Amino acid sequence: MNLKSKDLLGLRDISAEEIQYILETAKTMKYIVTSNNKKTAHLQGKSIITLFYENSTRTRLSFELASKYMGASAANISASSSSVSKGETLIDTGNTINMMGSDVVIIRHPMSGAPHLLAKNIKASVINAGDGMNEHPTQALLDMFTILEKKGTIKGLKIAIIGDILHSRVARSNIWGLTKLGAEVSISGPATLIPRDIDKLGVKVYSTVQEAILDADVVMGLRIQLERQKKGLFPTIREYSRFFGIDDKRLKLAKEDALVLHPGPVNRGVELASSVIDGEQSFINEQVTNGVAIRMALLYLLTRRGTNNEVTN
Amino acid sequence: MNLKSKDLLGLRDISAEEIQYILETAKTMKYIVTSNNKKTAHLQGKSIITLFYENSTRTRLSFELASKYMGASAANISASSSSVSKGETLIDTGNTINMMGSDVVIIRHPMSGAPHLLAKNIKASVINAGDGMNEHPTQALLDMFTILEKKGTIKGLKIAIIGDILHSRVARSNIWGLTKLGAEVSISGPATLIPRDIDKLGVKVYSTVQEAILDADVVMGLRIQLERQKKGLFPTIREYSRFFGIDDKRLKLAKEDALVLHPGPVNRGVELASSVIDGEQSFINEQVTNGVAIRMALLYLLTRRGTNNEVTN
Amino acid sequence: MNLKSKDLLGLRDISAEEIQYILETAKTMKYIVTSNNKKTAHLQGKSIITLFYENSTRTRLSFELASKYMGASAANISASSSSVSKGETLIDTGNTINMMGSDVVIIRHPMSGAPHLLAKNIKASVINAGDGMNEHPTQALLDMFTILEKKGTIKGLKIAIIGDILHSRVARSNIWGLTKLGAEVSISGPATLIPRDIDKLGVKVYSTVQEAILDADVVMGLRIQLERQKKGLFPTIREYSRFFGIDDKRLKLAKEDALVLHPGPVNRGVELASSVIDGEQSFINEQVTNGVAIRMALLYLLTRRGTNNEVTN
Repeated sequence: MNLKSKDLLGLRDISAEEIQYILETAKTMKYIVTSNNKKTAHLQGKSIITLFYENSTRTRLSFELASKYMGASAANISASSSSVSKGETLIDTGNTINMMGSDVVIIRHPMSGAPHLLAKNIKASVINAGDGMNEHPTQALLDMFTILEKKGTIKGLKIAIIGDILHSRVARSNIWGLTKLGAEVSISGPATLIPRDIDKLGVKVYSTVQEAILDADVVMGLRIQLERQKKGLFPTIREYSRFFGIDDKRLKLAKEDALVLHPGPVNRGVELASSVIDGEQSFINEQVTNGVAIRMALLYLLTRRGTNNEVTN
Repeated sequence: MNLKSKDLLGLRDISAEEIQYILETAKTMKYIVTSNNKKTAHLQGKSIITLFYENSTRTRLSFELASKYMGASAANISASSSSVSKGETLIDTGNTINMMGSDVVIIRHPMSGAPHLLAKNIKASVINAGDGMNEHPTQALLDMFTILEKKGTIKGLKIAIIGDILHSRVARSNIWGLTKLGAEVSISGPATLIPRDIDKLGVKVYSTVQEAILDADVVMGLRIQLERQKKGLFPTIREYSRFFGIDDKRLKLAKEDALVLHPGPVNRGVELASSVIDGEQSFINEQVTNGVAIRMALLYLLTRRGTNNEVTN
Repeated sequence: MNLKSKDLLGLRDISAEEIQYILETAKTMKYIVTSNNKKTAHLQGKSIITLFYENSTRTRLSFELASKYMGASAANISASSSSVSKGETLIDTGNTINMMGSDVVIIRHPMSGAPHLLAKNIKASVINAGDGMNEHPTQALLDMFTILEKKGTIKGLKIAIIGDILHSRVARSNIWGLTKLGAEVSISGPATLIPRDIDKLGVKVYSTVQEAILDADVVMGLRIQLERQKKGLFPTIREYSRFFGIDDKRLKLAKEDALVLHPGPVNRGVELASSVIDGEQSFINEQVTNGVAIRMALLYLLTRRGTNNEVTN
């Protein structure tokens, strides 16, 4: 089997079967990340570029290490660097990278749709590492991988996503992916931070965190962007924590063996209490390992398209 | 054959024979850049450092990928980093890099002559990636490679270079290189941006872009540094574009199969009209690929000096 | 033999025997750094991260090249990057890096003890690349390596360390290491920059540089942090140079074959006269090469712990 598209732009446009195939491939990759010898030849002779118009140590590093573990030539371009700031268009920048022999361009951009624009205009594969308020598909895939690993299935699970849904590309990608694989997604957060019409995506919206969490198999916190508060559209940290923060008491409303997930970095005591972060139900650290595995799987699947492997399908 | 110098500081001080040898070697390298497997062992065990005192994503990335495709240990130092800003002299910085086992130091510096000073004082090879208003030899080499590839020869061609010649190290390196290989170079640009005495280098100066382009085999635009305008020494963008911008109508004055080149990034609608940039005669994207090939060739030729290959010559 | 700890946090807590073992291993590594082929497989499949909360081109580059020469997957994180500036705790950042499969985290931090905190909380090995005014053990190890290489022994040598002892983690690590190996350490510097009770560490304190240098086998200058002067706690550069700068005349007070060392970058004419820096007794450049060798040795010794080699001991 091969992925249908040369790119991974979001979970909205990818089939359940393809998602499952990526998750399956990542299992093998996880053995590599956690082994004593992380060097393979899966990407030998391939060239992988991260092009980040927003800062992100975690996601960039995760992709960089995934590339290097598999033997690729990897390089990073950040928005502060010059030809980007020289006012070059995204397509011209992408073309330049492409023409240098790069096989995959991993882009993070503050504007929704930027990765799609890039993908349409260059031959190299494009991976969306977060675009505006749209999608962050590799984060959702690693969340799904973690759930699958711990629960054995995603179908039929009740998954609560709590926080600033409106601005969260992580939430959006998870909603697309999880519902495609048959989960029941419930969300909750401050009323001003719940998008109208979100229920049309097949999720249930609750006004209290307690209702959303009740009997959940997975409780996923989202990062609060503290900088948004200044604009006054937001509850204060104290209010947020009081009404939507997840502490031990609230976590008890979920199933006994519910998983706690968070894309990180967590604001300790805001989205999650420290005891929850460091508790037995938390798999936040393991999510990081799974993130490398997912990215290795994706890079491998996208770069082997168009090779002989395609024929054997 | 081997290059005579341990360094590549400019095309002024290198023979036509050496230039042709580099261009010849780059042909092989281009196969690698455009192949499915870009990993070779040409630079295995070599250490390559880029030391950039001016920002440049394109040139730095091109050298970085050239190094990595050939298996070198590659690392970047930028001027914003600390020991540079700690006021260390260029020679001390160079010595430090040299003593860490580096075989090649690739330097970009705002002062003309900085690479020459470095080269005189360290054992490692030095490549000039642009020094002040002096030279940018690898850019000129990739331009020449592109011309040679498309036209089969450089000798006897008419090549028009249009724009801010005064501040352009790209123009200067091209003038040295192209005239050495027997091309006829004509230049044009705003009167304040044409260096006096430039005709002594064997080029023809025209006051209108139309005259310079007439019957040309190659039309090369130069990047306008928009930031220079503020100082008032410059035409406005609108004026520049009106009098010296290359659009379809002006391009028709050149030979029918004339190539359009530009070092990039292009200010769309200023130096070149969008229809020219994206037209059939434009090889601006291919120049980028050729840039990686030229840099691979150079790195290979400079690092194999002093090895047994030297004996076989 | 194996190092006892998974980490190298300082020379205070490591035995003389372990120090000698690291120095011995670095001898082999120096052959590699100075050879034509610097590629080995000592760190094949290992992942090494530099996490620098203070800028340092030299030290970071030295570790980066040491990692790459031995075939590791290496990546850099700097404090200006995002998730660090997002207010994430050091332990959370370290955990993230650790969970991505990293075997060694090399940390530089303005707070003394930060590497110890990190080491206690993650499974990966931690190397202290400088913490506040505490220690900079790899710099001291490379100093000791240089002395051992030139003098054949450290035991019984008289070693003078001159300058701002108070703020110098280099001095502190050297004092721990050199006295453990049996050297006699004398120090001198401006009275305000000599820590009280420093004599309790077994060093002799002299008020004049002449007394400290007299009959020394090694004269080590320390870098003056010019920025500290502004706070008024410091002598002016002119005063410093006049009373504590090492010129040819003062150097003659030391033994005829005394070595001159400095961690670099040197403020020429301040800590050392240019004639001393570039003179025959100076091994400042060679210290840089030895730094890479020491870091290669350490990375190798720390990563092979826990493998089968441990059994053979």
